[in-house]
Amino acid sequence: MSTSANPVIDGRRARGATSRRAVMAVAVDLASVDGLEGLSIGTLAARSGMSKGGVVALFGSKEQLQLATIEAAIEVFREHVIEPALARSGGIARLRALTGSWLEYSRSRVFAGGCFFAAASAELGSRPGPARDAIATAMRDWQGFVRRTVDRALDRGELPVGTDPAQLAFEITSLLDGANDLSILLGSDEPYRRARTAIDRLLA
Amino acid sequence: MSTSANPVIDGRRARGATSRRAVMAVAVDLASVDGLEGLSIGTLAARSGMSKGGVVALFGSKEQLQLATIEAAIEVFREHVIEPALARSGGIARLRALTGSWLEYSRSRVFAGGCFFAAASAELGSRPGPARDAIATAMRDWQGFVRRTVDRALDRGELPVGTDPAQLAFEITSLLDGANDLSILLGSDEPYRRARTAIDRLLA
Repeated sequence: MSTSANPVIDGRRARGATSRRAVMAVAVDLASVDGLEGLSIGTLAARSGMSKGGVVALFGSKEQLQLATIEAAIEVFREHVIEPALARSGGIARLRALTGSWLEYSRSRVFAGGCFFAAASAELGSRPGPARDAIATAMRDWQGFVRRTVDRALDRGELPVGTDPAQLAFEITSLLDGANDLSILLGSDEPYRRARTAIDRLLA
Repeated sequence: MSTSANPVIDGRRARGATSRRAVMAVAVDLASVDGLEGLSIGTLAARSGMSKGGVVALFGSKEQLQLATIEAAIEVFREHVIEPALARSGGIARLRALTGSWLEYSRSRVFAGGCFFAAASAELGSRPGPARDAIATAMRDWQGFVRRTVDRALDRGELPVGTDPAQLAFEITSLLDGANDLSILLGSDEPYRRARTAIDRLLA
């Protein structure tokens, strides 16, 4: 949809948005392997076929590039993990769908280096700054989403009375992350089956 | 103990070993925060008060420095996590001691950035090379140690018959890593209590 009466400006904006999306797709993959600190404007230009000046024009500073990359990764995560779960009715069915889509998101390497947020948390956890804050917010949001899904299952009487929702959310997300980390390091799919087994027992 | 008949050479060797230990102590801390890739000979020289030439003389290439840092981190891990557990008799008591010493090793920030191996796995998991291989070996050894401790508890009849040792080892290490990662990111000790609660239930 046009937001301007000037078709020349509209065209430039559309091309800018397309370039930005193309560069972001390269950036999230690169960052999932080399880390957000490894994401240089030079490497990104080389890998996306743009000039350095073009990348700077799109993102400004390296910090802005990191923040834009985190935003783009959140969008990908929503599409692959959150939306398929939201398509299921709330409660235990959604919790099973959510953990299933998460394991598949990691196993199928939606990001080349496995879960983008696991890599970024480990990289930036001890390095204060806006990128670390953005990752911490994303992780709090994710933990909160799992926690609310557990709450809903409890409200519907689908989990034992007395279940501690924060505790269950912690255990589920630890098992997901554990599977991701071990699978990448050992080059095996077995950790995903182990996480599925453990989570199914927690939700039984 | 002297290994040479020449006291001058002995003195040089002793000073070399002391310098090396001092530099390694800085290196493991730096790497736990900035990553093994962030460990430059220049930064290490600046932070340890040595000349760049002195660091190069001690370690040679950056790759050799990374491998020496991983070895040093393994020693620290043995001292803080493995040895206190080995002091307990094998089986469930050792498993409780082992998970307790691991949680304390992470909580007390023996390494400034939390568990060295969690950070290094996330950083290098997708980046082939000798450093990645060394980390993968260290992680396999650790998983193997937990697994053998579970086996021993099973042999002694301290865990339910039919317990899958590899599954239980996966769940325990995922909960430990989950506590480490979340504590660093959220700046809270609560994840350690959650991991303890979950592990106590698994071992009950």
